[in-house]
Amino acid sequence: MLALEQIIFNDDGLIPVISQDFKTNEVLMLAWMNKESLSLTIKNKQAVYYSRSRKKLWYKGEESGHSQILKEIYMDCDNDVILLKVEQIGGIACHTGRRSCFFQKLDGHKWKNTSEIIKNPEDIYG
Amino acid sequence: MLALEQIIFNDDGLIPVISQDFKTNEVLMLAWMNKESLSLTIKNKQAVYYSRSRKKLWYKGEESGHSQILKEIYMDCDNDVILLKVEQIGGIACHTGRRSCFFQKLDGHKWKNTSEIIKNPEDIYG
Repeated sequence: MLALEQIIFNDDGLIPVISQDFKTNEVLMLAWMNKESLSLTIKNKQAVYYSRSRKKLWYKGEESGHSQILKEIYMDCDNDVILLKVEQIGGIACHTGRRSCFFQKLDGHKWKNTSEIIKNPEDIYG
Repeated sequence: MLALEQIIFNDDGLIPVISQDFKTNEVLMLAWMNKESLSLTIKNKQAVYYSRSRKKLWYKGEESGHSQILKEIYMDCDNDVILLKVEQIGGIACHTGRRSCFFQKLDGHKWKNTSEIIKNPEDIYG
């Protein structure tokens, strides 16, 4: 696909991907993709990341059911960052059971949790 | 600072940082910080990145005047991504003279520019 040829992947063949709620613009998470996962994301219209820890494709929601339906996809000015606008199924993007992964807010000299756990991770992952 | 000790920087001593408009939640850019730049960002209440190409601190707006005033700072669940909520001075975050760096939208098999150039880069950088 021609559009993929323009993308600059890093030395590990990866690109950082921000996902954002398509309605509220809330940033949900940052993960990584390789060329194959990005291609699958576009084809399937669902987010497929590359897990750096497991070193394999990560079909978002494959275990949790919390998949991300692709609405729009953007590339930055340097062609080396991707932004997805998604519909977050279940309203939970984070493995901690929260809506967004960015729930730790700097408050003085400490990080404070600012959002509720919607669903217990044990209930999500069994 | 205790809060900085909890952050996981990558093998190059860097962490990806998303900046987002504090009012509209528009994602403006993704850049990188090292420990020193993050510490300065918190201290100065203005975004200071680390330029990987120039290999030095990048005081956002030092040339363009388009600095980013820090409103809130978040860390993700893995402690390895930072999200800044900022007031974008001049309304231009991108070096191309656009509001956001994410102006290339995938439309079929092509990337299309979706936002206007607010100010000519030659007028910004002289």
